[in-house]
Amino acid sequence: MKICVLSGGVGGARFVQGVVDATAPEDVTVVGNVGDDVEVLGLHVSPDLDSILYALARANDEQRGWGRAGETWRTLETVASLSGESWFRLGDLDLGLHLVRTQALRAGEPLSRVTARLAASFGVATALLPATDDRLRTFIATAAGELPFQEWFVARGHRDEVDGLRFEGAETAAPGPGVLDALAGADVVLLAPSNPYVSIAPILAVAAIRDALAARRVPCVAVSPLIGGRAVKGPADRMLARLAGGTSPAHVAGCYEGLIDAIVVDEADAHDLDGLGRVRPIVARTLMSDESARRRLAEAALGAVPA
Amino acid sequence: MKICVLSGGVGGARFVQGVVDATAPEDVTVVGNVGDDVEVLGLHVSPDLDSILYALARANDEQRGWGRAGETWRTLETVASLSGESWFRLGDLDLGLHLVRTQALRAGEPLSRVTARLAASFGVATALLPATDDRLRTFIATAAGELPFQEWFVARGHRDEVDGLRFEGAETAAPGPGVLDALAGADVVLLAPSNPYVSIAPILAVAAIRDALAARRVPCVAVSPLIGGRAVKGPADRMLARLAGGTSPAHVAGCYEGLIDAIVVDEADAHDLDGLGRVRPIVARTLMSDESARRRLAEAALGAVPA
Repeated sequence: MKICVLSGGVGGARFVQGVVDATAPEDVTVVGNVGDDVEVLGLHVSPDLDSILYALARANDEQRGWGRAGETWRTLETVASLSGESWFRLGDLDLGLHLVRTQALRAGEPLSRVTARLAASFGVATALLPATDDRLRTFIATAAGELPFQEWFVARGHRDEVDGLRFEGAETAAPGPGVLDALAGADVVLLAPSNPYVSIAPILAVAAIRDALAARRVPCVAVSPLIGGRAVKGPADRMLARLAGGTSPAHVAGCYEGLIDAIVVDEADAHDLDGLGRVRPIVARTLMSDESARRRLAEAALGAVPA
Repeated sequence: MKICVLSGGVGGARFVQGVVDATAPEDVTVVGNVGDDVEVLGLHVSPDLDSILYALARANDEQRGWGRAGETWRTLETVASLSGESWFRLGDLDLGLHLVRTQALRAGEPLSRVTARLAASFGVATALLPATDDRLRTFIATAAGELPFQEWFVARGHRDEVDGLRFEGAETAAPGPGVLDALAGADVVLLAPSNPYVSIAPILAVAAIRDALAARRVPCVAVSPLIGGRAVKGPADRMLARLAGGTSPAHVAGCYEGLIDAIVVDEADAHDLDGLGRVRPIVARTLMSDESARRRLAEAALGAVPA
């Protein structure tokens, strides 16, 4: 069974670990969000791709929840002591990757090829594809004005309520190499339990990806990032309440209208399945507390596929 | 007494420590070589300016002889593991400075201003001036062809014999802000015990600096980098033997013809003072083994100045 997963950062990356564990690394292709890519200290940082890469390489920090295990912060401490740009937390190990990627991008190598090289260096057998090699950046409309994603998310701690989103460059962005093939060749497409607005929507903002998903001949299963209507972490619940009018499974599914056949929801949301229409609910425990929980969640999502 | 020191990297940086200790940090201006600046991993590295800065900040590694004390190498190890550019040894602490400088330079800030900001962040009271804000790069002619300085020095371990040098950009390079003022306002100019060819010559290749030194009204004292005709470290002796025909004090002084009034030479070279012409020899112990040795060497050089 070939699986294509659309994923954002940390939560999505954990889910991808479960998918790989439930199947086989080489049968999975992950399409990663690049809308939250950011230039920091002159370096091109791809937080979501890196979260997925580190998770697939089992090099991620389980405790902290993001970045690399065994990370240190000596370079950034020096940057801070020299009044440099230090608002975005880049560890010493992480910086090594950013330096290599940035130099390659400046030399004209596309993001997809750099990402593939990095994944190979980490010994990752799963294909990790940027949604697009083109520049696509998420902007957040707030009462304080429109903010670049990471300024809203990291610098201001996503405290500003979100009035809308814009994916700059999406109109002209082409799918990254391999993305449409992965969707066409998949036996199932999974939407990871990432924030629908800022993690999955920027991927779907690439018209050809959305069109491919709308025209799918195989099941597409979303996994809700909410438990009991609350986000485990981050602003997904506040955004859904404000932008969709609620945090029920139907509100989550509404973000993917016409694109999904089933949605995995937590047991805590099983009482509230109204309004899903033709989207089939799959009730499961969705908290990805450890390796086996992640794997079980992936199995629940894959269980939606007829054998 | 105002002192202006022309200096290259490690040896010069140690000497500058002695000069500052022998006088007062705020009375010293150091003009640093930029001919060995290099772009590594997309970062602008100024090895000589940094060696001087770290030495002035007493943040240099005494044992290793270069770079920062307490340095670690986690970022570069990651770069190497990802098949990135790792031939030039950049530590985690060092990288913090390079990131800040590179970002500032890309934003259009001149090297001199970035350098001054960095020095201020390190609490350094001595003025540290790049010889020029313009691009000036040393190239080394060898039997293997002409090599960029760091390719010859670091990547190939300066094993290729030197047939000649070229300072690209020197013809049009203007002195960095403050350099001519520092020379004009100095009571004495010192040429640090750096490699005459690759450390001091690129500074003197800026015509206005050489002209100012040639027209000086105050003493200029060079400190020979050789002890008993041998370099303490590096290729200075081999270069002098090949390019100047010998390694005596006269051969060193010949590199600065018309520019110096005295030369400090080691006791081990006191037997070989022929050919110095109007350049007055000052015999001293020149091995800068510790703080007091550095200070005594500076005092010997400054002793050439009439009180």
